[in-house]
Amino acid sequence: MMTYAQMSAAQRRAEYEAVLAAYETCKAEGLQLNMARGKPGKAQLDLVSGILTVLNSPEQCVSDGIDVRNYGELTGIPAAKRLFADILGCKAEECFIGGSASLTLMYDTIAKAFTHGLLHSEKPWSKLEKVKWLCPAPGYDRHFKITESFGCEMITIPMTPTGPDMDMVEELVKDGDVRGMWCVPKYSNPDGIVYSAETVRRIAALQPAAPDFTVMWDNAYCVHEFDGDFVPFDDILTLCREAGNPDMVYEYASTSKITLPGAGISVMASSRANLDYMEKHLNIQMISYDKVNQLRHVLYLKDKAHTLALMKQHAQIMYPKFRCVLEMLEAEIEPLGIATWQKPKGGYFVSVNTVPGLAKRTLQLCKEAGVTMTGAGATFPYGVDPNDSNIRIAPSLPPVAELEKAMAIFCASLKIAALEQLGV
Amino acid sequence: MMTYAQMSAAQRRAEYEAVLAAYETCKAEGLQLNMARGKPGKAQLDLVSGILTVLNSPEQCVSDGIDVRNYGELTGIPAAKRLFADILGCKAEECFIGGSASLTLMYDTIAKAFTHGLLHSEKPWSKLEKVKWLCPAPGYDRHFKITESFGCEMITIPMTPTGPDMDMVEELVKDGDVRGMWCVPKYSNPDGIVYSAETVRRIAALQPAAPDFTVMWDNAYCVHEFDGDFVPFDDILTLCREAGNPDMVYEYASTSKITLPGAGISVMASSRANLDYMEKHLNIQMISYDKVNQLRHVLYLKDKAHTLALMKQHAQIMYPKFRCVLEMLEAEIEPLGIATWQKPKGGYFVSVNTVPGLAKRTLQLCKEAGVTMTGAGATFPYGVDPNDSNIRIAPSLPPVAELEKAMAIFCASLKIAALEQLGV
Repeated sequence: MMTYAQMSAAQRRAEYEAVLAAYETCKAEGLQLNMARGKPGKAQLDLVSGILTVLNSPEQCVSDGIDVRNYGELTGIPAAKRLFADILGCKAEECFIGGSASLTLMYDTIAKAFTHGLLHSEKPWSKLEKVKWLCPAPGYDRHFKITESFGCEMITIPMTPTGPDMDMVEELVKDGDVRGMWCVPKYSNPDGIVYSAETVRRIAALQPAAPDFTVMWDNAYCVHEFDGDFVPFDDILTLCREAGNPDMVYEYASTSKITLPGAGISVMASSRANLDYMEKHLNIQMISYDKVNQLRHVLYLKDKAHTLALMKQHAQIMYPKFRCVLEMLEAEIEPLGIATWQKPKGGYFVSVNTVPGLAKRTLQLCKEAGVTMTGAGATFPYGVDPNDSNIRIAPSLPPVAELEKAMAIFCASLKIAALEQLGV
Repeated sequence: MMTYAQMSAAQRRAEYEAVLAAYETCKAEGLQLNMARGKPGKAQLDLVSGILTVLNSPEQCVSDGIDVRNYGELTGIPAAKRLFADILGCKAEECFIGGSASLTLMYDTIAKAFTHGLLHSEKPWSKLEKVKWLCPAPGYDRHFKITESFGCEMITIPMTPTGPDMDMVEELVKDGDVRGMWCVPKYSNPDGIVYSAETVRRIAALQPAAPDFTVMWDNAYCVHEFDGDFVPFDDILTLCREAGNPDMVYEYASTSKITLPGAGISVMASSRANLDYMEKHLNIQMISYDKVNQLRHVLYLKDKAHTLALMKQHAQIMYPKFRCVLEMLEAEIEPLGIATWQKPKGGYFVSVNTVPGLAKRTLQLCKEAGVTMTGAGATFPYGVDPNDSNIRIAPSLPPVAELEKAMAIFCASLKIAALEQLGV
């Protein structure tokens, strides 16, 4: 099979007509499909119904001597800390338990840096001339929105198959205005790349000029394999401590894609020195997150081993969806030389990198045929993809039958965009 | 009975010896009682056990067509908005639903003012030379901690039996540096004062110089009568709108003392213009608060009428505790001319104002005898009570039998402090 670039004008013309006809046929079906966000499907929500009933009596509401129904315990219940410590490989006392979104904990950390400063800050960042922030991209749009919202100057770091380009990161942190960096170390959003052990080690050993340089370590997909067994990872807190950077990292995780996205719990893990500092400020802001729901999660998930067994069940639902996406990309797109992608074994996305200049047009065609995807550019700082190339596919929400139709529209749209660019 | 001031030196000496002996007897019991916070007692937690089981199946998780288990609905589920609108007398679309602490919503509002500005701000408050804030006092220590944390210059407004001294407030808001004011309009913390209709009307009709002057209306005890029927209140949002100040107020409430303090839901109510502005920022910070718990509350509390019926049951638990405190104060302290207090019919506190200079010493004596109360000064900005006079009693947590012992210690401690001051 020829790539589009290898085709003659006449061949491309014939291909264009065939693809356009296929696209119009799909479009005529009047689909309304949403693959914009990494939203679990209904089968995944139903899978964890047990969490709704696991805690059902006042007698169960005492945990480590604490009545979880009452005020108190700002930092969360000890049992929830032990659960997350087991999953993340850190210590229980290094965990602060949050509510249904780890995003809120991340936002709070950055907000505190701006309003009050972090542990090693000379002053609140709102008093600084400039705050620069490193953004491995393509990355998570909601991360970039946070640092954009606070007026950070965001610097794009290219992603490689082993993680962010560390030569560039090591060079940039010599600039004292560079205060931090976003990281999704396992099944990165959107590429699904697992940072190599070497990359993780180099991040932990960074020698930043800024005393309060902060690695925002969003371990969102720490146990989220959909293909194959759990892939272990090193504890970033230990690595940073061993590298002489004990207070450089804040790690985040949540049960949003383990139990219920709308009613999960989350964690912020960091050194005791960092948590002592943050808890002093968080004590002004809150009494505690919902401790009854923390205990529900402890009773339901039990420990890491039991959580991993549950993730295997999620994987049974997720795997066919990712297989559908990857097989259609391989069959329909790979031979044409118009796009590449990673083949992730976990996480929530497939990230397609087209030849430059096709992303916006492809997504416009998808939308016109009733398929909503993550907006073009969203995976880059300021929502601007310099190559107009990256498209994030989120296959988790639709059933496989709908996904097949959506992918048919996507493949046709990408082909049309590529052929338009080559001239038809 | 003579007041202490009327007593001769010999009489005071005799009284001192008697009181000291009583105090030492109590102290010898080795009590460990905590009346520091307005924490509901176990009987109140057990009262609402139904909320643990009211939502128990996936089928129940759809509300107004929304699957509450999944991501989405930043502003909360419509049914929870309708519930709070019913209770507060505002419109459902004026409600933003939060998590287990309204305090967090308040903090977020002030934090946004500092980092991004409010709807009518010329610039973020962090860029202002000075931010002044009006603090009716005695007031809620956690309110004052928030504005203190952001470096506001807090101005104490004396409380009167009808609410804050409005002549002073009306004068002070002519200063453009005055950006806001804390209010607990019903059963104020700690005095238990209900703002008069006239006070509320004058607040709504303020003519502040600052375009972004903000009334933080913490309606924490809106349905929290422990003595007598529900006392209706006017909707502050309507009053502000009618007075030409539609965007001047943010109102807060929660179910912390209706269902479970550790697992309730909260609300921020304000004009649509304010909420449109805030939601744009909150969308960066979170996905949504726990919607499953929102639906649990809707199913359990149903509506205002049903909520008021539940509050009558709370009142049956609370009333004997407040009666114990008030009766002991009346019997032991009132004749002595050393302190005064309001006699609240709702809320969570009895606020004792001693003659100047007795609060710290009284609380020190309480502590030495095993009774922990809210720290002296906590009810004033910067934790400094200019008269060293206000003591907040929180009777909700201990059972009545323990409360009697604690109040015996309190009364003895206050008497000792008064007699020491008069000279013994």
